Order: sequence, then structure tokens, then C-alpha cells
Amino acid sequence: MKKIAIIGISGYSGLELLRLLHSHPDAEIVNVYGTSNIGAKLADLFPKLLNFPKYAALTIKTFSSDEIMATADLVFFATPAGIAAELATDFIAADFPVVDLSGDFRLKIPAQYEKWYKKTAVHKNLLSKADYVLADFDRPTQAYISNPGCYATVTLLSLAPLYQVNLIQLDSVIIDAKSGLSGAGKKLTDSSHYVNANENVSLYKLNQHQHIPEIFNKLVSWNVNAKPIQFSTSLIPVNRGIFVSTYAKLAEGITFSDVVAAYHQTYDDKYFVRVLNDGLLPDLHSVVGTNFTDIGLGYNELTNTLTVVTVIDNLVKGAAGQAIQNMNHFFGFDEKAGLDLVPIL
Amino acid sequence: MKKIAIIGISGYSGLELLRLLHSHPDAEIVNVYGTSNIGAKLADLFPKLLNFPKYAALTIKTFSSDEIMATADLVFFATPAGIAAELATDFIAADFPVVDLSGDFRLKIPAQYEKWYKKTAVHKNLLSKADYVLADFDRPTQAYISNPGCYATVTLLSLAPLYQVNLIQLDSVIIDAKSGLSGAGKKLTDSSHYVNANENVSLYKLNQHQHIPEIFNKLVSWNVNAKPIQFSTSLIPVNRGIFVSTYAKLAEGITFSDVVAAYHQTYDDKYFVRVLNDGLLPDLHSVVGTNFTDIGLGYNELTNTLTVVTVIDNLVKGAAGQAIQNMNHFFGFDEKAGLDLVPIL
Amino acid sequence: MKKIAIIGISGYSGLELLRLLHSHPDAEIVNVYGTSNIGAKLADLFPKLLNFPKYAALTIKTFSSDEIMATADLVFFATPAGIAAELATDFIAADFPVVDLSGDFRLKIPAQYEKWYKKTAVHKNLLSKADYVLADFDRPTQAYISNPGCYATVTLLSLAPLYQVNLIQLDSVIIDAKSGLSGAGKKLTDSSHYVNANENVSLYKLNQHQHIPEIFNKLVSWNVNAKPIQFSTSLIPVNRGIFVSTYAKLAEGITFSDVVAAYHQTYDDKYFVRVLNDGLLPDLHSVVGTNFTDIGLGYNELTNTLTVVTVIDNLVKGAAGQAIQNMNHFFGFDEKAGLDLVPIL
Amino acid sequence: MKKIAIIGISGYSGLELLRLLHSHPDAEIVNVYGTSNIGAKLADLFPKLLNFPKYAALTIKTFSSDEIMATADLVFFATPAGIAAELATDFIAADFPVVDLSGDFRLKIPAQYEKWYKKTAVHKNLLSKADYVLADFDRPTQAYISNPGCYATVTLLSLAPLYQVNLIQLDSVIIDAKSGLSGAGKKLTDSSHYVNANENVSLYKLNQHQHIPEIFNKLVSWNVNAKPIQFSTSLIPVNRGIFVSTYAKLAEGITFSDVVAAYHQTYDDKYFVRVLNDGLLPDLHSVVGTNFTDIGLGYNELTNTLTVVTVIDNLVKGAAGQAIQNMNHFFGFDEKAGLDLVPIL
Repeated sequence: MKKIAIIGISGYSGLELLRLLHSHPDAEIVNVYGTSNIGAKLADLFPKLLNFPKYAALTIKTFSSDEIMATADLVFFATPAGIAAELATDFIAADFPVVDLSGDFRLKIPAQYEKWYKKTAVHKNLLSKADYVLADFDRPTQAYISNPGCYATVTLLSLAPLYQVNLIQLDSVIIDAKSGLSGAGKKLTDSSHYVNANENVSLYKLNQHQHIPEIFNKLVSWNVNAKPIQFSTSLIPVNRGIFVSTYAKLAEGITFSDVVAAYHQTYDDKYFVRVLNDGLLPDLHSVVGTNFTDIGLGYNELTNTLTVVTVIDNLVKGAAGQAIQNMNHFFGFDEKAGLDLVPIL
Repeated sequence: MKKIAIIGISGYSGLELLRLLHSHPDAEIVNVYGTSNIGAKLADLFPKLLNFPKYAALTIKTFSSDEIMATADLVFFATPAGIAAELATDFIAADFPVVDLSGDFRLKIPAQYEKWYKKTAVHKNLLSKADYVLADFDRPTQAYISNPGCYATVTLLSLAPLYQVNLIQLDSVIIDAKSGLSGAGKKLTDSSHYVNANENVSLYKLNQHQHIPEIFNKLVSWNVNAKPIQFSTSLIPVNRGIFVSTYAKLAEGITFSDVVAAYHQTYDDKYFVRVLNDGLLPDLHSVVGTNFTDIGLGYNELTNTLTVVTVIDNLVKGAAGQAIQNMNHFFGFDEKAGLDLVPIL
Repeated sequence: MKKIAIIGISGYSGLELLRLLHSHPDAEIVNVYGTSNIGAKLADLFPKLLNFPKYAALTIKTFSSDEIMATADLVFFATPAGIAAELATDFIAADFPVVDLSGDFRLKIPAQYEKWYKKTAVHKNLLSKADYVLADFDRPTQAYISNPGCYATVTLLSLAPLYQVNLIQLDSVIIDAKSGLSGAGKKLTDSSHYVNANENVSLYKLNQHQHIPEIFNKLVSWNVNAKPIQFSTSLIPVNRGIFVSTYAKLAEGITFSDVVAAYHQTYDDKYFVRVLNDGLLPDLHSVVGTNFTDIGLGYNELTNTLTVVTVIDNLVKGAAGQAIQNMNHFFGFDEKAGLDLVPIL
Repeated sequence: MKKIAIIGISGYSGLELLRLLHSHPDAEIVNVYGTSNIGAKLADLFPKLLNFPKYAALTIKTFSSDEIMATADLVFFATPAGIAAELATDFIAADFPVVDLSGDFRLKIPAQYEKWYKKTAVHKNLLSKADYVLADFDRPTQAYISNPGCYATVTLLSLAPLYQVNLIQLDSVIIDAKSGLSGAGKKLTDSSHYVNANENVSLYKLNQHQHIPEIFNKLVSWNVNAKPIQFSTSLIPVNRGIFVSTYAKLAEGITFSDVVAAYHQTYDDKYFVRVLNDGLLPDLHSVVGTNFTDIGLGYNELTNTLTVVTVIDNLVKGAAGQAIQNMNHFFGFDEKAGLDLVPIL
């Protein structure tokens, strides 16, 4: 039984880690850390955690890398951008296992980080010590795992076969992503006020979303000819879920059958990615609460355009679930451990 | 490992049984039955069930009591009113274990059933062979378990200490219940059309809800002086959850401290009922996805009125979860088996 | 054409005044005031106001009682609690017409104000100079009109015939009110964060809501025997609307027919209050976007309990609409001026 | 005062016509027609219409072209596909003014109608007698006005300057449209069931939506080089509103400034189309309840891709509002008559 610490327990990702790890057969949470309500019992702060023996002893502690390394086998960073950059040094120095759900170690070039995150790269010398691990494709080679962003995950899984097998015109890709509000975190902002978000849709950070370089870097690793992507993100009035419609023109000589075959070849042996048949398209309910990525495909002969519809739960596959999947790979656990969940309405 | 059959797999309760039983250590679904899509693979009808090895072999079958009794150890009825009344005979004759989520066997007096359900009681001679089992209070004594209704469950748990210990003026009880739309089932009706239900609230079946006699009968069993209750139900625009505000005047000589103490005494040893402290009141998020019932208490000295706020997930504690809890008791399993779930946003 | 000023234009009530006054035949907005974005053009702050010639010239100004009295015929306070208390002096001294949508002048006893609003009553000597005007019953007798609160309005209209005609047992009244999120204002709080409010219901300020004394004072004015009321408020996930279920036992000798007759006698000549027939109950869609109050009635013989279901749009009848109705009465306009609107989905 | 008849009063478009015409200074509804509830008073069927003197006398009548032409000056068809095709003959023979909100006369080639609407073109000889009138660009030249579809309206307004002025690479256009549920009508279907639509997003009719040929035909009329468009439609959980993200690559030599200038040149003199400045993008709240179309623009140099975000209220600009705008043009009324409305939350 591996012992787990979580930094940033009070955010959506932290609490989702806790929800999922609760049913993990080989991992148990031993300590949780935060920056407010230090000393409070977790079940007092979050009454929904009452009665769970596993959580009864947990109180929110002030961060201590020494304590974590002395008491745990792995730590999750479920923190806003900028925190892991500052706190990771000791863990990296000690090769202590970390799964970092934040964006701090996803971009390897300091200038790129500074441009897109609008923060100083205080950790520029550490960046190479972290692996960017897209769980359905990659396995960690170092102890510090940088967990992909929610939009990046769903977009990359949507595009992978197209880039890996060279099926499309690379300058024709349009990605229209829609996310529920939990993706924006617990922070109080005008755009997350109920009255503003309810009965509304809005497109934000057009051409400026910090997941764009992360997606592009991975696409280049799959296909050196990858071109800049056109990617946009809209807020939709749901709590959980990202729904991505991707459009691309097929490369010359490629048929829709080739595309369908490539998706199946790529994903049929990956448990958590499901390719639907017969033109069926997934909806958010297909995956909410789970670590699945569901993909549907359609083709328009008149425009030679492929449509790929891909959905994930942003808090599971887009954050805590993939983080646990990465941990499972790291420790050699069953990939499904803690993640064997049926979608919930 | 007990073998389970489900009749009415395609409804919300049937699918919720499947979601919960998926993680049950001691029970496995062997056959599912329905009235449409006979022969279809479950994962083709419900693509969200793709990739689950446990469901790969399940196809929807036509009901057969013989087959069920030959292949399973227990059967769940997750059917609309009137079906179990017709199909239960063989199981009862054979003392075969049944958990019936429908309302068919909840009322023991045929005339009461006929009045409130507006159906002929074709099963009038069988009614005494079923036990009405409120899982947090009762244990089954017969093989046929009638699972309480969603509104009845939350209302009874809200009121139990008040009636059992005689804390209130029995003619002063007002129950104002609000339910999400899944409580109304999958049937297509004007009131469940998205545009009608969204951004709306409506009160329905005033003084005519079929759970009223079920509640009253149980209250009388706890306190022979119970008087008719004032109970109303409103639809609120959420998928899951029932939120009940209950009001009652304290009996003479009873203090609010007495009430708080009684709730703790009643529930502190019941894992799935959580009484909040310090005037904290639960919300739906406290319990969604789980089998918990959360209760909060408040008192107004000026009106001598107690307010009890109680919440459940109507598909779990109000249906499939309590059904599994009853099954666990029946088979002597750990009460939490299949139900050890952290609330989900 | 009367000239209108609005203080607090950026809040929900301020913008709703603007929406409604846009179609008012006898009133036009000449100046708007706020505390932030001073100097900004209204249409730049709120692009939804682009292209309206009436608003093209409006910029947000710093409050000046002199300017208002020099340029306008009436001013609306659409401000949070505490502001009108501080700014009203000059207007009251000059007998300048004011409609105050805030709670500052609703309670006439300073200690009551201080207890329920948790603020010092800096305006204690001015309180008697304001009339509390429930527009469907009262007409202003002074220039300073205190507009009733949203919950108070719907509750009072729900109860009026019962108290005025003495139809109920006065110690039996239970009021269970549910409000959409715009009722809580634009302020950013945890409870108004989308993810918290969506798919949720919560009961707040139990026995402590500041509208309780306002309701009670008016009830006493209708019936000196009025007793403290049991009143609670829950948040429901909609943008607009209050839905109130009121319960009371009928007084001895009173029949349900008496009650129905009393509601019709009270309201049939009041345009903005609609009493539904035949046990029909209103829903929020009946009134959203309008100044109507819709009322439905039901009776349970077994419990001798009357149920009154009453709905309003909290931003119209509960705020800006009633304020305009009061203004219409004050100036002798047609009561429906600016308010002749069909409900919107 | 022109006299108006409405066929199909009970649908969303019919009731929205009624809502908007209520405040029209120059038009009044004299008769309404339907296929069910014949003889019923409108206010009894729709209690939200109680107390409106204008509607007090309206009962639902059986269709009669003779009666309509004898009593009205213009008739609106607010009917499902296939009805106007059958009922329009007499009106067309008599050159009687019609505004048809249905799709029956939008496609001029019978085979096109039959392919996309999957209906026999019983009206093939009448098609040329109807004008397709996009209100912000076109004026009717015949008495029979075919009102554009909701998706077609918002898409065409989104694209007009690009095609008219030749600003883009015509094979690069991607249109990703999202609509609220009222766009799907009152019909009860699985996809409009509250529980299915709530907390969900789904893409439907991929490459098969019947508005595709309507859009394409108009684009060709603007630019003979127009190529087939890639157009998709998703359902989002809101009642009202369509949000369209359109993507296209700029033609060689065209700059983003050229595009912005073209939009302003095209729309600055059209009251109901608002082009936002400074990269501001509209949301649904910008237009709900009104006849406005709001447009925002963004450009990505790396991909040479223009993003156009366009929003409408599908029941107003997408149906009843544009129909009234067309009527206003036909009769020579002020274009804003009945449509001078401020957006509602």
C-alpha cells in the first residue's frame, strides 16, 4: 500500500483526487496540505466527507517537503500555476515521485512558460527533470511527472491518429472546445458567477489559452510537420465535462475508412479511450465521473472535412483521473486501479 | 459471489443498480431484462457501458421467472408501477429473494393501493408476503423486500426521531419536498421537457402524491398517535437529488437540545445517515452520487418551530442504493458493500 | 415626460430599471450614478446596451444630490443596504421624490433595523419620512417611497387575504420560499459560484433573513393578532424567480370556498395579481420578465391545511417593476406604464 | 392598425410572435389557429396570458384561408415543416401577405427540399412565388415571405461581409453552431428530456442539417464562387440562444483590419446587427429576448485564421423577431416596431 500526500487539497482537483483514491486498492492518503484553514479537520471543512474512516484523521497541514518525503511515497501537486515551480526543488533533488497536475512543468522552454503563463520561470533549471506524460500514450521515465492540462488531454487524444499517421492537411485543423465551469477552478470571478454563466455561452482567451503551446509541442513530437493550431475555448453551463469538436481536411488519397481504421488501431488496446462506431457521436454523459475519453467520427465529402467529437470529464481524465493513471503506471499498478467507474448521470 | 438479475434495466433505477453493483465485491449481474430492445447488447444501447468486461456479455432478455430463479440468487425489480404486481407470483411462491424498487408492494391494504396508484390490485393476496424495509431502520424477515419510495425514504429519515421519541406536536408537521427531474423517470412528458423544466419550479400532485400513504403508514408504526401529514412535492431544475424542508412545533416541555440529542442518538450508529452539527444545513452536493442521508436542524423560539433539512440522492438512497443496502443486509454482507462512495460534484 | 435618475445603475436592480423604463411612455432616464467606472459610457460597460439612442449619452456619474434634484423629477436608489441611509438626507429635506429599492427605510424602528441589517441606523431620524409602499395595496403619501423586498412582496401578496379577512389559525403559518440566484446580487461569493449553485439547493439564513421583520410588521398592520411567522429561504438554480409555498390551517368555520372567494375578492381588481382557478398552480415561467404575481390554492381536508403557491420575478415585481409601479402611482400614470409585458420563456 | 392572424399559435414561435406583437404599435392579432384544443380560450391554455385585454377574446380556431383573408391583413405561419406547403395555395393565389416561419419555402428547387426535409414537395409549383428574405439585407418583392431559419440567419449574418467583399479563402470555412433547446421545438423527444439535455452537450445531424442548403444558396447569391460549407450544430443546456463560432482563413493580401472595416461598413447602418470593437466577443446574454445579432471578431496570425463569434436569440431574430421585422418592412412600418427591447438576463 503506497502512501500518498496531496498539496492543494481544497481545490476541485485536490478533492477529486481524494474521491478517486478512496477506492484505490493500493494507495492511501496519509497527509494533505493547503494554504488556508491550517489545522482544520478535513471533514469539518467539507461535511460531505463525514463518516469516512479513511479521512477522519486528516487535517490540513502547512507544506513541508521534509515531512512529505518522510511519510509518503508520492505527492500530488493540485495547485494553481506558480506553486509547484516554487516548491518542487526538494522533491526533484531527491528524485522523489511527484505527479504535478498544474501547468508549471508542462512547457520545457522557460520563455514559452513566461509568455503563456505570464509568470517568471523561477524553476527554469528544473524543467528538464520533469516528464510530460499523456497517460494513454506515454510512460514516465523520471520521478517528476507533469500531468497534461484538461484541454490539452482531450485535444491530443482527439488528434493523435491524424498526426501520427499523417492523415490530414496539417494547416486545416480547427479545434472548438467547450468546457464546464469546474474547469475554471474555485476562484470567484465575474465569469463564474452563477447568473453570468447560467443560460449563457462565452468564448474566452481567444488565441491566448495557455494550453495551446502544450498541445502544439506534443503534436510536433508526433509529426515534425505539425503547424500552429487554431484552438478556441468556450464556457458552457455545466459543472463537469469538456466537449471538443475538431475539424480537418483529409490529406490527398486518404479516405474516411482509413481514418476510422487508424483510430481503432491507435485506441482499441487503450482501455480508457473508446472509439464509437457507425457515426455515433459521444455526449458529456458518456464519460462524466470517469476516466474515459470517448471519440466519434464523421466525414463530409462535399468539403472533404473530417469531424472528430471528443469528450472527457475535465476533473477526471482532465486532471485527477489521469494523474492517478500516471501514478498507476509509475508504481506498476493495474492501470484501472481507482478508476474503474461507470459514468454517472 | 451472489448472482443478480435486474428487471427493467433501461430505466434510471436499473442503470443506477448497474453503476453501483459494478464495484460490489460480493455480487455480480448475470442477466438483465426489459420489454424493448430484446436481444440488444447493453453496451450497444448504452455506449457509456463500452469496455466494461463485466457488461460485455449482457443482452436484454424477455422476462422469465424460471430463468431468473435458475441462474440468479436475487432479482431486482426496477420497473414502473404495476409490473411487479403481475410478475412477482412465481418468486413469492418459491420464496426467491426479490428487492422491488417499485411501489407495488409498499401499501399493504389493496384499497389503499388502488386509490393512490389508480390501478387494480391484482396482487392483493400477495401483499402480506412482502416486507417494507427502510434500510436504516429495518431488516428483512421475508424474501420479498419492498424498497421504500424516494420521497418516503428522505421524509421518514427526516422525521423518525420526532415520532419515535414523541418530540413534536403531531398535527403541526409540514413537509416541503423538492426533487430533481430524474425522480420523474425517463418517460417523455411536458413537465420533463427541458425548456419547461429549466429555469422553472413547479409544485405537482398536491395532496395526491402516492408516497403519502406509505409515509403515513410507517409513521403510525413508530407512533400510534401519528396524524395525517401535510406533504408536497416540487420539481426543481437539477438531475439528481431531493431536498426536504420539514417543519414542526415542539411538544410541550421539549427543547431544541432534546431534539438534537435525539437525532444523534438515533443516527450516530447508522453509517448512512449523517446529522450535521452547529446549525449547519446540508445541500444536495453533500450527498449526490452516494447512499448518504444528511440532516441539519434549526429552531425558532418565536414560533416554537423546528426546521429539519434533509437531503438524499433520489437514485441512490432513494432507489438503487437503498435496494443494495437491503440486499447487503439480506445476504449478511457488509452494509457498505458497493456503496462506499464519496459525493461527486 | 418625467426625468429619472438612478443611483446604483450597475447592479441587477439598476439594469432592470433601465430595461423596463426603456418602454415607459412617460418617463426617461437622464442620469445614472455609481461608485465605480465613473465617467464610463454605459454602452461601453454593458455592450448589450449598444445601439439604443436613449442610452447613448449616459455615462456613470459620481453621486450628487444637487445635480439630481436640478435635473430629475425622481430618483431610484438601487443600492446595497446602507447607502440610501447615508445619501437620502437632502432628498428628504427637500421632499424630493425617491423610490428606494434597498432595505434601508423598510423598518421604522432603528433597533429593528440595526438587529436585522447589522448596521448602525445613521438615518434613525429620517425613518418616519418614508412610506413602506406595497404597490398592489398601498399608495404613497410622502415623497420618499420605500419599495418592499423581493421575499416580502411575494410573501405578503401570498398571505394578504388570509390576514385581512381572518381566515386562518395565525400560529400555523409556514412559508417556504425558494429564490433564483439574481436575488443574491452581483457580489462574488462562494454560494453564487456557478459550480456550487448549479445542480444544488441550499437553505440559508434560517430564521435570520432580514425580510422577516418587514413581513411581520405589514401583517400586523393587517391583523393585530398576527403572530411571528416561520419563514425560510432556499437558493434554487435559476437566474430569476421566487417560488413560495405557504401553508396554514384554516380557522374554525372557514371553508376552502371561503378562501378562494377571499382571494378573488382581494385581487380581481388588481391587475398585477392573478389568482388561478380550479386548483391550478403557477410556475416561475408564468411570470418571468413581468410584474405579475400569480397565486394558486389547494386544500387538504385531512390536515385542514391550505397551500398557497405564489410566484414572482424577483427583479421585476420583487424590485424594479414594483418600483416603477410605485412611481406610476405617485405621478398618476397608468399603473401598467412600462410594465405591460408578456412573460418570457 | 394592421390585423394579424397566426397559424400554429401553440408552438414556441407562435407564442413568441404573440409576446412581441403585444407591444407593436401598428399591428394587432385578430385570430389564432391551431390543430388541437380548438375552441379553447388562449388564456385558459396558457395561464401566463391571463389579464391581457388584447388576448381575452382569442380562441384557437381551425384553419380557414377564407376567414383569414376576410379578417386579417397578414398571416404568420408558425408551423412545423410540411404544413405551409399544404395550406399556402389560397394565399398565394390571392397575393395575400404571408410571413412563413417554417422551412417550406426556403429552398427553391423541389429536389433540394425533398432531399433535406425528407418530404414530398407538394408545393413545387408555388416555390417561385415566395421570397427568401433575410431581414437585415433583403426587402420583400412578393406577398409571400419565407423567413430564414434560425441557424441560417445567424450563420449568414456571421459570414456576409466575408463573402460579399471576398475576404476569405472560400474552402476554409468552418461553422460550429450551438443552440439552446427551444430551437428543437416543443416536441417530446429523448434529446429534449430534461435529464438528457441538462449537464450535457451533444452534436446532432452532422452534415445533414436542413439549414445547410439554405445557407449555401444565399452565400452563392453573394459570391458565385462560394464552396460547400462545413456546418455543425450542437445542443447546449440553455433555453434560448444560438452561439456560433465561425473560422476561416483570410484571402491573400487581406488583413484583419480589412475584415473589421468590412464588418463595420456592412453593419453600421443596420440597427439590429451590432459589431463589437476591440476584440470584444458577445455572449448569449448580450441578445436574449431581443432581435439583435451581435458579432465579435478575432484573428490569429500564426494560422491566418479569422474567428467570428455571432449570437442571436433563436426565438426572436431566429424566428418571430425577424418575421416581424420582415412584416415591418413589408408594411412600411418603423423597422423597430414591436422589437425595441433591451436584453433580459
